Amino acid sequence: MGLLVLEKIRVVLVNTSHPGNIGGAARAMKNMGLSRLVLVDPQDFPSSEAVARASGAVDILDGAHIVGSLEEALVGCSLVLGTSARDRHIPWPLLDPRECATTSLQQVAQGGEVALVFGREYAGLTNEELQRCQFHVHIPSDPEFSSLNLATAVQVLTYEVRMAWLAQQGQPTKMSKLETNGEQASLPVTADELELFYGHLESTLVQIGFHDPSNPRHLMSRLRRLYGRSNISKLEMNILRGILTETQKAARGEAHKRRDV
Amino acid sequence: MGLLVLEKIRVVLVNTSHPGNIGGAARAMKNMGLSRLVLVDPQDFPSSEAVARASGAVDILDGAHIVGSLEEALVGCSLVLGTSARDRHIPWPLLDPRECATTSLQQVAQGGEVALVFGREYAGLTNEELQRCQFHVHIPSDPEFSSLNLATAVQVLTYEVRMAWLAQQGQPTKMSKLETNGEQASLPVTADELELFYGHLESTLVQIGFHDPSNPRHLMSRLRRLYGRSNISKLEMNILRGILTETQKAARGEAHKRRDV
Repeated sequence: MGLLVLEKIRVVLVNTSHPGNIGGAARAMKNMGLSRLVLVDPQDFPSSEAVARASGAVDILDGAHIVGSLEEALVGCSLVLGTSARDRHIPWPLLDPRECATTSLQQVAQGGEVALVFGREYAGLTNEELQRCQFHVHIPSDPEFSSLNLATAVQVLTYEVRMAWLAQQGQPTKMSKLETNGEQASLPVTADELELFYGHLESTLVQIGFHDPSNPRHLMSRLRRLYGRSNISKLEMNILRGILTETQKAARGEAHKRRDV
Repeated sequence: MGLLVLEKIRVVLVNTSHPGNIGGAARAMKNMGLSRLVLVDPQDFPSSEAVARASGAVDILDGAHIVGSLEEALVGCSLVLGTSARDRHIPWPLLDPRECATTSLQQVAQGGEVALVFGREYAGLTNEELQRCQFHVHIPSDPEFSSLNLATAVQVLTYEVRMAWLAQQGQPTKMSKLETNGEQASLPVTADELELFYGHLESTLVQIGFHDPSNPRHLMSRLRRLYGRSNISKLEMNILRGILTETQKAARGEAHKRRDV
């Protein structure tokens, strides 16, 4: 069911000049799980350059709807969001990409469909086109160098859609499969295991002559602070304890040697 | 002052095949206000294709540092974040792009420098390269089509850095408080200092008989993972190096004793 949400959000590219950007946009969409691409009057499409840059997202290109006007591209949409790089004379409700994503998902949750509209590489959307959008979306860029590549702008907005969608699904935004591989060994150590380690560490440091309990100089508290914040797993604790045991054996060798002298 | 933060975060591209991607990455960086680009062994650079795709971010390309190894690229960095698309055998601390951004800014606030490392277009980063990173960053993509274009991956991470940085600028008191506790000892160690420590640790473990390089069994990578995530300060590093030095002395005693027997 969750995937249907992403199908309700279409990407609309208006009057794109470079077919490579259409391919790049298709790849970005597919990476983020979106599939509906609408091209308004593309200047050069279909194109082998689009296919090359799509890098496997050819299904998105093949399924793209090509239309003659923005109006056609927006049929069925209840929320239209237009990207805008520049300040406009007419103030307009403005969202950042994150707000754009949450607003889009809210709209879908209410049964609507959403269009994310991207303008021309050099001129963006016209004022008339921008006035067809309920909200303008501005990707926060350096004011001195504010114009993003079209495909990377699509990447940023669709990335935010995916982040919001994963959060909504209750899915982690990272592959926690790796971290929650519930092996015993990856469990964190308990406080009492940590205390046993500190005892072992201190006696070892005394043995190798690094630590003098009569002149402790915060050494153990500093080591406690370091290891205490490291969220040590049981496996890692076994390694650290093993190192201490071997160090003690080596230190006993040193002591024997001194007696030998 | 705020802009200095972004100067502490470098983008490292490893062994990039396509110069167009270097140009696209430079453009994305400049859009987001980042300027420091490091290229490890690029396959085709300088290149007119890079200039074309940079679309005005030529200053970033001109200022790029070209180095022969990842190690050189990371000199001076106290936090190294590597992008990773794939599951790995050894679980590693994993961040999503948003966490990557906040972690990076925290590190800079503590006086450190940060590297965001991006691998090859087809093969990503090698396991050895990934083990030099304290954290792996995964851009949440559709598992069925997970490989992002290199420049758009740079766009996503630098976009999150800019979003976090803009949010932070709205809280100037918090920032400055963090920046003023500039004691040398509490500064985080740099990646090269961490590498020297791992070298010292490994040779010590060999000396005490705990580690057999011919049968490594993930030992060093597990220890790298543990210490890598611990955000070790320069003072703590001095303590750890001191312990190793004393352990080596003890181990030499053991060796002497054995010769005596």
